[in-house]
Amino acid sequence: MLSRKIAVEMTPPYDQDTTDASARLLSALPRELEPVQLDLSALRQLPAACRVGEWTVTATLSWTPSCYHVVALAPGRGDCRVYGIAIDLGSTTVCGQLVDLETGDVVCQASVYNHQIAFGEDILTRVFACKDQLQKLEEIRRATVSSIGQVMDALRERSGYAVETCGAMTVAGNTTMVHFLLGLDAFCVFAAPYAPWVTQPEPMPARSLGIDMAGYVYLYPCRANYLGGDIVSGIVATGMMEREKICVFLDIGTNGELVVGNRDFLLAGAGAAGPALEGGVVKTGMRAVDGAVSYVKLQDDRFALTVIGGGTPKGLCGSGIVDLIAQLRLNGKIDLLGKFRREASLVKEIHGELGIAYAPGLYFVQSDVDEFLRTKAAANTMVEYMMDQIGMTMDDVDRFYVAGAFGAYLDRESAVTIGLYPDIPREKLCSAGNTSLEGARMLLCRREIWLALPGILKTMEYIQFGEVANFVDRMTAASAIPHTDMGRYPSVRRRLLERGVP
Amino acid sequence: MLSRKIAVEMTPPYDQDTTDASARLLSALPRELEPVQLDLSALRQLPAACRVGEWTVTATLSWTPSCYHVVALAPGRGDCRVYGIAIDLGSTTVCGQLVDLETGDVVCQASVYNHQIAFGEDILTRVFACKDQLQKLEEIRRATVSSIGQVMDALRERSGYAVETCGAMTVAGNTTMVHFLLGLDAFCVFAAPYAPWVTQPEPMPARSLGIDMAGYVYLYPCRANYLGGDIVSGIVATGMMEREKICVFLDIGTNGELVVGNRDFLLAGAGAAGPALEGGVVKTGMRAVDGAVSYVKLQDDRFALTVIGGGTPKGLCGSGIVDLIAQLRLNGKIDLLGKFRREASLVKEIHGELGIAYAPGLYFVQSDVDEFLRTKAAANTMVEYMMDQIGMTMDDVDRFYVAGAFGAYLDRESAVTIGLYPDIPREKLCSAGNTSLEGARMLLCRREIWLALPGILKTMEYIQFGEVANFVDRMTAASAIPHTDMGRYPSVRRRLLERGVP
Repeated sequence: MLSRKIAVEMTPPYDQDTTDASARLLSALPRELEPVQLDLSALRQLPAACRVGEWTVTATLSWTPSCYHVVALAPGRGDCRVYGIAIDLGSTTVCGQLVDLETGDVVCQASVYNHQIAFGEDILTRVFACKDQLQKLEEIRRATVSSIGQVMDALRERSGYAVETCGAMTVAGNTTMVHFLLGLDAFCVFAAPYAPWVTQPEPMPARSLGIDMAGYVYLYPCRANYLGGDIVSGIVATGMMEREKICVFLDIGTNGELVVGNRDFLLAGAGAAGPALEGGVVKTGMRAVDGAVSYVKLQDDRFALTVIGGGTPKGLCGSGIVDLIAQLRLNGKIDLLGKFRREASLVKEIHGELGIAYAPGLYFVQSDVDEFLRTKAAANTMVEYMMDQIGMTMDDVDRFYVAGAFGAYLDRESAVTIGLYPDIPREKLCSAGNTSLEGARMLLCRREIWLALPGILKTMEYIQFGEVANFVDRMTAASAIPHTDMGRYPSVRRRLLERGVP
Repeated sequence: MLSRKIAVEMTPPYDQDTTDASARLLSALPRELEPVQLDLSALRQLPAACRVGEWTVTATLSWTPSCYHVVALAPGRGDCRVYGIAIDLGSTTVCGQLVDLETGDVVCQASVYNHQIAFGEDILTRVFACKDQLQKLEEIRRATVSSIGQVMDALRERSGYAVETCGAMTVAGNTTMVHFLLGLDAFCVFAAPYAPWVTQPEPMPARSLGIDMAGYVYLYPCRANYLGGDIVSGIVATGMMEREKICVFLDIGTNGELVVGNRDFLLAGAGAAGPALEGGVVKTGMRAVDGAVSYVKLQDDRFALTVIGGGTPKGLCGSGIVDLIAQLRLNGKIDLLGKFRREASLVKEIHGELGIAYAPGLYFVQSDVDEFLRTKAAANTMVEYMMDQIGMTMDDVDRFYVAGAFGAYLDRESAVTIGLYPDIPREKLCSAGNTSLEGARMLLCRREIWLALPGILKTMEYIQFGEVANFVDRMTAASAIPHTDMGRYPSVRRRLLERGVP
């Protein structure tokens, strides 16, 4: 556990022993915690705690590799259950969990939009907004901190727990988010030679970051500019770095990141795979919020839609897009290369291009399919390229983890049908959910993870896909639905044959 | 040295090595400094320093027992001379020195009145003012910090050096001053069982204390409520804890503190010896400022006075009082027990008691002598008692250090005459000046001192004089001028005999 809470009974000072209260406190703590340091914030609480608690106090401790720090003191024998906060610092959404460190249980959860959005919807706009602008950078830093603060407020409200007394907060975020939280210019993340200012910050007092919490903040380290703490956290969440068998970890968020490996090796890469999958580049695409179509079934030329929150459909979220394309393909509305078949029923011309109305007034057209397939192909090619690198095929893969909100809602079968996921036994396809948050939660409970992180980073080999020679050729092949090499997708070929779709 | 300044040339990142800048910085530092941690304040300066300095930066480091901290970064190959600030945090005066850490030289010096005085002239008033008053306590804390800030401003002005860039500040102050600087209630210092809240605070970032300086602050530890960091610093300044021969260290300030010992033992005690010696309880007493009589000679019934700053005498400072009493005794105006001799010339009745006019309109009367002798006796008895404790006499003493502004101006011969100092070879009587400040200066330059402090504290045995059985009897004997046992003062006896004084 990164934090401990311990009730301490001190002998009050008396004439024959006037040892100072700080020394009494430290020597009354369990031996196995040594060395322990009393931080100034806690020292200032010592007089009141001793007086009110009659020399029994409850100490909150934060662990760091060099020592434990007493970070807060409360009077008397308080509740010694230890809670901490896990944060997934996403560029769009900041999610947090209040976690019982002993059991690992999530007490409650909350998420807010990242306040950085005021400086630009996408991350690059934000980076440019504060490049060489110290004032703007400070504003973005504060927006980041206030987002975390809002999550804390929500957690406090939901749990009734004074979350600001927590002794530990773990934060997993990509390299840019880590830079912004620390108040560092993040232009380096996107400009050659892509060397970040920092990748492995030490644990630091929350208050030094402007976060109103007693304990320390532990930032998941980043491996490289595009392989941030969120991915390292995801690796930890899957446990792939400890397994014997090969795992694939695909995180599809605003970007796409991929890690292939096991306890012996970890090959990692990143690419701009995400926006389309989150509904970003599809005309009627939208985030997975109320009104978004999350599930699509097409039978006998009639659409059956599942709309988040019920009500009238307003657009497609990522899982809806994948479903829709899969259904269009299985019903012969689009062909192997993703082109609408003019002769198919329901297909019509819309504003000069072929497409289909999946709901009244809501269209999905050729350029939407094309855009989406480019992204799908990128993700697919990353995986394929990496498997080649290690001389393995999908048959060697024991687990195929898909992380991100996207992966959580996605219909596995549809994802295989369009060739986003490989055609392997479905039990090997794991929707891992928010692995960034999950890794942060795990780190709270097991400080061995923190100590293991430098080793994980060292094991991770970073591949920059932009430099791979035949990447574009591969992508073209992967732009088909599911793939130009149908032999890789036997189950999809079978279903298409069954349905008589060419 | 508690701080280092090192110019670091980094290899800029390039396509084949995109290691983050923080790691580049840390690995470019000399090996012997490891482990080194990059503090957040310095990390935030890293981008600008690398850009402007083209990957050559000058790092300021602060040492702590667990690691070095990089606390500031400046672009380019800067001046690598290291300066630090030594502070004597006195309850009346806050003195500071800007010190060259390599040579130990004092660049300049400054002192200001402690802003705490707004909360009470004497320390007890201040302590009561903020007892159980958190708001007041915070105000006193700020007054303490702003006093140090004012010293820093003066040092900056005098030296032209940007003192806020310093990597180390050492502070020596009594237990109450240490508590106030940390924002802690100091009532414990004066109330049974006299156990402080803290005596050995860890080094901490100056900014965590509200001090505008890049590096760390190192507080001299306190041994007990009345034996503060100023005394421990004084011990270090004299070097007595390393000597083979016995030394006596007497610090006469607002209080009187005494340490007797050598490298094998240190016996320490404290008593309310001070105010009278600083001119506090003498009616025409005053601080050693302009107008104060600092030196008195009486011959043929005529006074020769030295007045600080020249001009008309306004009162007596400590050294003037000692001189005056010595002269009165040597000229037979007062007797062995300190009583004015009604029959002596110049002696007259003033407001109902015997006394003398030492300058036009300035009187020194019987109650002044009595008051002063009580204090003198207390200091003297402390010394005597301690010598008895260790079974030694003044003949065994190799050095008799007298610290404090008082000691610096005091005429040795007069001090022996009135029995404040022992009658030993004069070269053994050392006016040590502001030993609190001197110990702080030395600590800046030698971090071995910091590591040795816990051992010094352990060696120090604390004697509470109030509990000593025959203390009052001893004091009565020591209230004489120089002492009822004239055998202890052969040189004074000789002079009195020469002059025919009974």
